[in-house]
Amino acid sequence: MIIMNIETHKRDEMIEITRSVQDYITQSDVTEGLAIVQSLHTTAGITVNENADPDVKTDFLRRFDEVYPWNHAQDLHSEGNTASHLKTSSVGHSQTVIINEGRLLLGTWQGIYFCEFDGPRNRKYAVKIIGT
Amino acid sequence: MIIMNIETHKRDEMIEITRSVQDYITQSDVTEGLAIVQSLHTTAGITVNENADPDVKTDFLRRFDEVYPWNHAQDLHSEGNTASHLKTSSVGHSQTVIINEGRLLLGTWQGIYFCEFDGPRNRKYAVKIIGT
Amino acid sequence: MIIMNIETHKRDEMIEITRSVQDYITQSDVTEGLAIVQSLHTTAGITVNENADPDVKTDFLRRFDEVYPWNHAQDLHSEGNTASHLKTSSVGHSQTVIINEGRLLLGTWQGIYFCEFDGPRNRKYAVKIIGT
Repeated sequence: MIIMNIETHKRDEMIEITRSVQDYITQSDVTEGLAIVQSLHTTAGITVNENADPDVKTDFLRRFDEVYPWNHAQDLHSEGNTASHLKTSSVGHSQTVIINEGRLLLGTWQGIYFCEFDGPRNRKYAVKIIGT
Repeated sequence: MIIMNIETHKRDEMIEITRSVQDYITQSDVTEGLAIVQSLHTTAGITVNENADPDVKTDFLRRFDEVYPWNHAQDLHSEGNTASHLKTSSVGHSQTVIINEGRLLLGTWQGIYFCEFDGPRNRKYAVKIIGT
Repeated sequence: MIIMNIETHKRDEMIEITRSVQDYITQSDVTEGLAIVQSLHTTAGITVNENADPDVKTDFLRRFDEVYPWNHAQDLHSEGNTASHLKTSSVGHSQTVIINEGRLLLGTWQGIYFCEFDGPRNRKYAVKIIGT
């Protein structure tokens, strides 16, 4: 298991971390198994989504903010970041990806993303590899 | 693998189950691996979210109910609980958490929650531990 | 690990794949462990939800389309399928199900679904089994 540090730059941001996960797998010498990538925060999650057109991320974050807007008249939570908790549970605090022949088994357009929903901050995520 | 019983008290409710999962890990003597926590229902899920301010849960459930309202004029499903199916798939029927040095690897504010979306009911969730 | 092909027939469609996953487990002779089911696409995901009343799927997909509508005036992504990316991250690109006594551990009404959000297309999903 390794804990990685990541610095985010905006309130809402999707940062691709596929390479850091793959590098850790390569160092581990595991060829078949699973990689579990886990955010250690309640206002930042992990997802697998498109790694090609950056407009997808822009659209994704803007639309997500419409469904779970930052401001809401009835919110009680004093930190004011209720929306980021909902976004985190919706994408998930962790993702599991199959490892095949020493590589993350990802489709052509799939990448692993750290999803910041209450940044900018210094964040941490963990990667655990299970060999079979 | 163990199946746990849980009694819920409201239609929508987030009940922290971190301790029950940790206790099962401690009994298992696994020090490194994964814990998989899985709801055995289609109208109740599992999520990892904030374990400190209870207002987060209140805000979370109220906002989630606005996105997926209980009543919808076009719903066909005769049980009338379509919203709870959508909420369950959105948070997920299960969550995976890394085990490190015999403990759930959770950030300071992270807890594991059983999410009731069609209660009150008597519910079940399963916990499976994978040692490495 | 096995890669399965699946043909979808609509833009939004939930196709139950529980049997194909169970058949692969049965062939593997694994009696205790995990099954990981992973979509290899960014506009199609996997979820666990109701396998009984087909109206649940109809309601689910119609309501999901209201939350993440296909058309949105501000979308930048040239393929025009931003909604399908959001839906995929919301249900998840993969799901993990416990294996107990050689069977998927599912509640009475739980089934595993391939979720098409930008069809019809020929799609692929992977199944990985971890024995314990």
